Amino acid sequence: MVNFDLSDTQQGVRTAVQSFASTHLRNARSIYETAGSQPHAEWSSRFRSTRPIYRAAVEAGLIKAQIPQPLGGNGGPLLDAALVVEEMYSVETSASLTILGTGLGLTPLFMAGSPELQEKFLKPFLSGEGEPLASLVFSEPAGSANYAEEGGEGFGTVAVEDGEDYVISGEKIWATNSGGWDDRGADLQTLCCRIPSPGLSIREQVAIIVVTRADIASNSTEAFRVLSHPQTVGHTAVNGPHIRYTNLRVPRSNLLAPPGKGADVIDLTFTASAMLVGAMGVGIMRQVFDTTLAWAKEEKRGSHEIMMKKQSVADLLIKIKIRCEATRALVWKAACAFDKAPGSPVAAELCYEAKIFGSESAVDSVMDGINLVGVSAYSRTYPLGDLLQDAIVLPIFDGGNVGVRRRQIEKIFAMHGYDAWEATFGRAA
Amino acid sequence: MVNFDLSDTQQGVRTAVQSFASTHLRNARSIYETAGSQPHAEWSSRFRSTRPIYRAAVEAGLIKAQIPQPLGGNGGPLLDAALVVEEMYSVETSASLTILGTGLGLTPLFMAGSPELQEKFLKPFLSGEGEPLASLVFSEPAGSANYAEEGGEGFGTVAVEDGEDYVISGEKIWATNSGGWDDRGADLQTLCCRIPSPGLSIREQVAIIVVTRADIASNSTEAFRVLSHPQTVGHTAVNGPHIRYTNLRVPRSNLLAPPGKGADVIDLTFTASAMLVGAMGVGIMRQVFDTTLAWAKEEKRGSHEIMMKKQSVADLLIKIKIRCEATRALVWKAACAFDKAPGSPVAAELCYEAKIFGSESAVDSVMDGINLVGVSAYSRTYPLGDLLQDAIVLPIFDGGNVGVRRRQIEKIFAMHGYDAWEATFGRAA
Amino acid sequence: MVNFDLSDTQQGVRTAVQSFASTHLRNARSIYETAGSQPHAEWSSRFRSTRPIYRAAVEAGLIKAQIPQPLGGNGGPLLDAALVVEEMYSVETSASLTILGTGLGLTPLFMAGSPELQEKFLKPFLSGEGEPLASLVFSEPAGSANYAEEGGEGFGTVAVEDGEDYVISGEKIWATNSGGWDDRGADLQTLCCRIPSPGLSIREQVAIIVVTRADIASNSTEAFRVLSHPQTVGHTAVNGPHIRYTNLRVPRSNLLAPPGKGADVIDLTFTASAMLVGAMGVGIMRQVFDTTLAWAKEEKRGSHEIMMKKQSVADLLIKIKIRCEATRALVWKAACAFDKAPGSPVAAELCYEAKIFGSESAVDSVMDGINLVGVSAYSRTYPLGDLLQDAIVLPIFDGGNVGVRRRQIEKIFAMHGYDAWEATFGRAA
Amino acid sequence: MVNFDLSDTQQGVRTAVQSFASTHLRNARSIYETAGSQPHAEWSSRFRSTRPIYRAAVEAGLIKAQIPQPLGGNGGPLLDAALVVEEMYSVETSASLTILGTGLGLTPLFMAGSPELQEKFLKPFLSGEGEPLASLVFSEPAGSANYAEEGGEGFGTVAVEDGEDYVISGEKIWATNSGGWDDRGADLQTLCCRIPSPGLSIREQVAIIVVTRADIASNSTEAFRVLSHPQTVGHTAVNGPHIRYTNLRVPRSNLLAPPGKGADVIDLTFTASAMLVGAMGVGIMRQVFDTTLAWAKEEKRGSHEIMMKKQSVADLLIKIKIRCEATRALVWKAACAFDKAPGSPVAAELCYEAKIFGSESAVDSVMDGINLVGVSAYSRTYPLGDLLQDAIVLPIFDGGNVGVRRRQIEKIFAMHGYDAWEATFGRAA
Ligand SMILES: Cc1cc2nc3c(=O)[nH]c(=O)nc-3n(C[C@H](O)[C@H](O)[C@H](O)COP(=O)(O)OP(=O)(O)OC[C@H]3O[C@@H](n4cnc5c(N)ncnc54)[C@H](O)[C@@H]3O)c2cc1C
Ligand SMILES: Cc1cc2nc3c(=O)[nH]c(=O)nc-3n(C[C@H](O)[C@H](O)[C@H](O)COP(=O)(O)OP(=O)(O)OC[C@H]3O[C@@H](n4cnc5c(N)ncnc54)[C@H](O)[C@@H]3O)c2cc1C
Ligand SMILES: Cc1cc2nc3c(=O)[nH]c(=O)nc-3n(C[C@H](O)[C@H](O)[C@H](O)COP(=O)(O)OP(=O)(O)OC[C@H]3O[C@@H](n4cnc5c(N)ncnc54)[C@H](O)[C@@H]3O)c2cc1C
Ligand SMILES: Cc1cc2nc3c(=O)[nH]c(=O)nc-3n(C[C@H](O)[C@H](O)[C@H](O)COP(=O)(O)OP(=O)(O)OC[C@H]3O[C@@H](n4cnc5c(N)ncnc54)[C@H](O)[C@@H]3O)c2cc1C
Ligand SMILES: [Mg+2]
Ligand SMILES: [Mg+2]
Repeated sequence: MVNFDLSDTQQGVRTAVQSFASTHLRNARSIYETAGSQPHAEWSSRFRSTRPIYRAAVEAGLIKAQIPQPLGGNGGPLLDAALVVEEMYSVETSASLTILGTGLGLTPLFMAGSPELQEKFLKPFLSGEGEPLASLVFSEPAGSANYAEEGGEGFGTVAVEDGEDYVISGEKIWATNSGGWDDRGADLQTLCCRIPSPGLSIREQVAIIVVTRADIASNSTEAFRVLSHPQTVGHTAVNGPHIRYTNLRVPRSNLLAPPGKGADVIDLTFTASAMLVGAMGVGIMRQVFDTTLAWAKEEKRGSHEIMMKKQSVADLLIKIKIRCEATRALVWKAACAFDKAPGSPVAAELCYEAKIFGSESAVDSVMDGINLVGVSAYSRTYPLGDLLQDAIVLPIFDGGNVGVRRRQIEKIFAMHGYDAWEATFGRAA
Repeated sequence: MVNFDLSDTQQGVRTAVQSFASTHLRNARSIYETAGSQPHAEWSSRFRSTRPIYRAAVEAGLIKAQIPQPLGGNGGPLLDAALVVEEMYSVETSASLTILGTGLGLTPLFMAGSPELQEKFLKPFLSGEGEPLASLVFSEPAGSANYAEEGGEGFGTVAVEDGEDYVISGEKIWATNSGGWDDRGADLQTLCCRIPSPGLSIREQVAIIVVTRADIASNSTEAFRVLSHPQTVGHTAVNGPHIRYTNLRVPRSNLLAPPGKGADVIDLTFTASAMLVGAMGVGIMRQVFDTTLAWAKEEKRGSHEIMMKKQSVADLLIKIKIRCEATRALVWKAACAFDKAPGSPVAAELCYEAKIFGSESAVDSVMDGINLVGVSAYSRTYPLGDLLQDAIVLPIFDGGNVGVRRRQIEKIFAMHGYDAWEATFGRAA
Repeated sequence: MVNFDLSDTQQGVRTAVQSFASTHLRNARSIYETAGSQPHAEWSSRFRSTRPIYRAAVEAGLIKAQIPQPLGGNGGPLLDAALVVEEMYSVETSASLTILGTGLGLTPLFMAGSPELQEKFLKPFLSGEGEPLASLVFSEPAGSANYAEEGGEGFGTVAVEDGEDYVISGEKIWATNSGGWDDRGADLQTLCCRIPSPGLSIREQVAIIVVTRADIASNSTEAFRVLSHPQTVGHTAVNGPHIRYTNLRVPRSNLLAPPGKGADVIDLTFTASAMLVGAMGVGIMRQVFDTTLAWAKEEKRGSHEIMMKKQSVADLLIKIKIRCEATRALVWKAACAFDKAPGSPVAAELCYEAKIFGSESAVDSVMDGINLVGVSAYSRTYPLGDLLQDAIVLPIFDGGNVGVRRRQIEKIFAMHGYDAWEATFGRAA
Repeated sequence: MVNFDLSDTQQGVRTAVQSFASTHLRNARSIYETAGSQPHAEWSSRFRSTRPIYRAAVEAGLIKAQIPQPLGGNGGPLLDAALVVEEMYSVETSASLTILGTGLGLTPLFMAGSPELQEKFLKPFLSGEGEPLASLVFSEPAGSANYAEEGGEGFGTVAVEDGEDYVISGEKIWATNSGGWDDRGADLQTLCCRIPSPGLSIREQVAIIVVTRADIASNSTEAFRVLSHPQTVGHTAVNGPHIRYTNLRVPRSNLLAPPGKGADVIDLTFTASAMLVGAMGVGIMRQVFDTTLAWAKEEKRGSHEIMMKKQSVADLLIKIKIRCEATRALVWKAACAFDKAPGSPVAAELCYEAKIFGSESAVDSVMDGINLVGVSAYSRTYPLGDLLQDAIVLPIFDGGNVGVRRRQIEKIFAMHGYDAWEATFGRAA
């Protein structure tokens, strides 16, 4: 029965996140943008300054909430995650992404891990203590859109069996949390790489291997190096360093998804995350709308009437609101479709669409908000400038819309027997 | 609990409409576009040629389905109506609008009629026989966007009490079905007019009066005249004549919504209908997508590969699909919100947003479809040309987006105590 | 010296066309849309009914104006043509396109014809008498975007040497004027085809051969057949039939552009024409702006003030005007660049850009105009409905923007040594 | 005669600016973004660090080039200014705006100054020495879009006659260069204010008064105060402080434009500047195109082919290029129209259109560029992030498009006798 009412549990989830957000996220920017009265001297200090927020998130159960209940966590259906993400992003971005990055990093474990691996590696994340970081380590400096293209180069990060170990070499970049709090690695990395195997296609060679801080510590320092922390346009307190692995050894038992299965797990991981990026867009648009509506009801800018009465202003507010409502409805639908049939292409399609639509709508909406407020929005005391810099990542990360997300949908459309309306009405007779 | 699954009843509704549509709507255009091998000699014959389709609709229960169950009909929640409208518009437009126009014409009766009036006037529409037409007669030649604006002119159609009667004079235009099958009036008109009353504002003077064919028949021929049938760009078999009332007398007991209440009933009627226009947009986009996807998977246009493989083509398909999915999700949400709190501004806002977004998305999508197919789409044997002409009415009828729909949202935003996210999360604490 | 002032000659050209347009084009639609009080019984009669207009155009020198002065015509720089086209399309479309179609049909002769061929074949078009039609016969039913793609199929229309003749077989469609006034062929066709030659690439096989009515008459009736007249969404009085050639014999001396040269001549022809499509867009936008501005200054739609005072209306007018001004400026620049360096890629790029921008802007502007006027624009007595149907061809004919025009620009960008600003500032040092 | 060729003088102007730009602007950002290896400790140091660049600009004649020849400068037609601005903004923004801000500050003097005032106040700017700054001081904290609206509040900055002096009080903000190098004022401010006069409308009360550093120095320190330096999203080395005047006395002979004339001078000043903002947009789009084209021709992102070959990438490049070409053509046309008839509404309309179109196109193009490059563009080492932050000011400064620029065009459209195509073809007969 079609229904848009949150369950009591879901209302509870929202309330809990709102409470966390108002205590820990609302003022987060002031923490990571300044150390005392000055900007942080080093870029990486920004990330580190959010460690107390992260600890509070752990304590508030926000990490456990990202782990499925059967595995010991509190995670519910994917829609709950959408609610959480919207609430966070309606308040703050960087510290939120750090928290969510751990969930992303653990996802391959949920999807492909054996019970033993799950038990072993999830433990620190279920403890409710400390500041354990996980990271999905996928992206590479030379590009990742075509990591599974036959005829392309495939991952440059390569693992080779040697006795009881895999020996890993290559470079990664951008993976949220991957450097860890101290540049010696996240507590857990799910490392996407290639295990070269004659006869297998580029796609079939893809594997996922778990790398822990302990694994790194048991190698020489050279084996894992943070080469640099790319300064980013927005999301300025997130950790996504340029990393080099040089003959890093990890036990073969760390293999999470073997060749032949790795790429599917990656794709599924990025399917759920796509929907969540849509939810980030909703959160950002909510902020934009709330901010600009309040402005328009307050400000006269020298005129005899408030700006809300000017049709050109109202038309922009309406655009923003419509995009926000439409995105949220689509995100929810995608979440429900994913929960019903996680591996199905038609559910995946909805998730990618939620990502594309939500991310591009968010950017357009921040821009509309800026044009509406006018020159005052150019002051950094006004929130829209920062928000623009945060928002523009939505279309280009988590698989850029141009190179990754549209191509994935394209492939689904091209499938034999594709039924465009199956996710909505079931398979046509 | 948020859910996007249709109930069995709803699946049944869809199946029934699909069956009606494939029998009666799929070939409708060939009926109203040609009489034998030639075009119809008169414009109004096009409408008349759809009478058998309408009769079949009555027999199939499609009129009863638009009347609420408590009043003897089969109508369920508004979402069911959205499903019906989508199915119809995914196949055909003109004959469908005629059927839906009757539902629109009856809506004020559902919303404001006394039990006596409802019983009396609904009877022919509940019978399951004949081809009874109803019509909401609202629009006027000089414009209707500002019918309730203080300082404006208000309706030019005016009713004056005279003994036991109202005496009605003025001109109307565009009202679907208003002329009836024979230019002597729809079986039932819900006529929106002004009862001039000193001391009342323009808005407060608005009233709705029922006018039946019997009422018209008991007047002189001059009292009700179809002046012309405007030839329209699309929806070419719909009846929406320019009409003149000249001292038409109807009994005072026909008063449906008195001054002070009329405008509210009109606005509520146009709230439900707005959501349905969104659903029309979904239907049209579905047609566009299905058509163009099939084309792209089939055609090579002289290239070595099918058009689906060209990213520029795929990008257009993706745009169309995303708009369709996002609109449907929003329409469903608006329908649910309306059902929960029909008179509430926040539900109304969603309905207007569904209308704006769905209508403009439909036009954009047909245009994208045309550009994708290229020059072949310029042939009238290809469906997209007709579809464009049908689609462009969505943004301008049922209250144009520029003059009516955005202005309504603007007013809601401006309300004191407006809570932007109430429709989604309940009122903020 | 940068300058936007028309020369006296150019002002004269404009005045002449305006005078022709107001006498012959302004009421053209009433001629081709009705025969007496009824629509034309046959589609092809619409085209035929414009014959007197065409004759008047010949007499007014509008055909000669499309032939370069060195060849005996009155044609000036390409910018003059842009002025002519804008004036025509600001008044009427179908009869105008017929006139311009002759210019297009002759263009390969200007560009590739030997003096003998030029003298021989241009004669009837220089006479200032009769109603001689020329036609560029390029497009084919299976698509033309990829006619020169290696690995694709190339033209299906094929010419084979046989003694002193070429023997031509294949199907064409859409070529303006190709059927002639009586379905026995335009006075002159420049037929784009393939002369299959082992060892030559698909592109190198392309040739252009002149086919005259006399040629057709000297064959059997079967050799040239009009199979059908596709009914089009707009431009409803243009002749662009589906044609079949069956072993049509023409003398080898009719060869205009031999294999190895044909494709270049076609591309150059479509370069000049691209710029003119931009000018058509300007003409259409001019109509839209003039019409809707007048409407907005006149109409109150029940409000206390004219619509021009509503910001939402003004914003649409501004959009339309900006697109029109920007397109015209770009079209002029493209025309000047073409005149300076006709064969250069950077001039070609500007012409294609003028086509894409002007055509898409025209469609957007008609749609904005419709939304601005609201429901009244849905009446066919209001000009915008017809204009939309005419305008939507601009992006999809003369090489669709998606399949042809953007691909051409893509190739220019990809050229080694491409200098993006050369057309503006000369080649960078 | 329509022509797009630069004169030799104009080519010379371009070459000169290019040479200045490559010496002084190309590395400017590294100067104002870091002091040694660290960011500048204070915001205002960024501006100050550009002083040597400004001095070089003075020496290179870039200030003199902004002063008309009849007044002793080297300024040519407005088109030359457009060329200069494009070249500068194709390399750098902040230091460029500082240089151009002086030209803007002097413009009222060119337009309204008596020969005596001109001679007296222009002297330091003609000397070719030092770093003299001028500033147009117009904007106020409470908004400036409606400074001349009857019924609105008008300028809060007010001048009152007192003996031989004007006594000035009020607050200003954003005026480029207004604080001067040391917060004690630009060498010359053209201060827009209100001289309250009973019986005059808000608009008629507007006046412009010259305020020099000497004037400020002869008052108490309190009379002129820089309250703060708003940190801006982009253009981060520009000086546009929040300023307070408290009973600042300046001689009455400093009156540049008296009540009744001030608003016209302001509007004319902002007409020329509008066109120049269009040219800034061109410069920015040039940068975006050059950067992203090079990227697309170089990068494979793991695919088997360069990104330029992907249609989705090419389509974005084409969009950017078309906007850039169309804007430049429109800017040039506006400049020529302004030169021909500076005070005419139709020339003004073109200037405003160039501003709106160019500014919004620039923002869209940077965004397209970011989406094209994908995640790498989120690194601050890649230029597009900074460019976005610079570009978003174009639509909101120099009179925001929503509140100022569209409203100005709206008023021109509404004028009695408005002739839409007069600027192009002369007044219609
Ligand atoms: C804040 C932030 C957090 C991130 N977190 C993580 C993380 O946790 N883990 C992780 O692994 N990565 C992370 N990333 C990286 C992110 O996931 C990227 O989206 C991903 O690396 C792919 O980048 P891309 O889509 O831009 O592809 P690229 O391969 O870099 O492609 C770049 C561009 O090339 C073009 N292109 C490429 N291929 C094609 C094609 N086939 N067809 C058409 N166009 C094409 C497109 O225009 C595309 O935009 C993060 C990045 C940021 C900024
Ligand atoms: C196929 C079809 C079926 C229809 N069915 C019916 C029906 O059953 N019953 C019925 O009564 N009508 C019907 N109509 C008419 C329809 O409901 C119209 O939308 C309605 O009449 C209002 O028209 P409008 O919104 O264009 O307003 P108008 O008043 O005509 O306004 C025209 C334009 O003016 C501008 N405008 C007006 N006011 C403002 C403002 N305050 N601010 C800004 N801009 C403004 C807008 O640009 C607007 O588009 C039908 C029409 C069609 C074509
Ligand atoms: C009124 C009118 C007048 C005309 N006059 C003439 C005339 O005088 N002479 C004449 O010869 N023709 C004429 N035409 C036809 C016209 O020139 C067409 O544009 C031309 O035939 C090519 O059609 P197309 O661009 O739609 O290409 P098609 O080959 O039909 O391609 C169709 C679609 O496929 C896709 N596509 C194809 N190839 C690619 C690709 N490589 N990459 C990406 N997408 C691709 C695009 O989406 C494209 O829109 C006329 C047509 C009309 C309607
Ligand atoms: C880098 C930079 C340099 C600058 N240089 C200068 C300078 O040298 N000198 C100077 O004086 N100023 C300068 N400014 C300020 C600039 O000129 C502003 O554009 C100007 O102050 C007006 O701001 P605004 O258009 O945003 O109007 P505001 O009055 O602030 O209006 C804000 C918003 O309200 C809405 N609005 C207002 N009125 C209306 C209306 N009537 N109808 C509809 N909507 C309305 C619009 O949405 C508008 O965007 C500079 C600003 C920056 C950032
Ligand atoms: Mg990408
Ligand atoms: Mg503004």
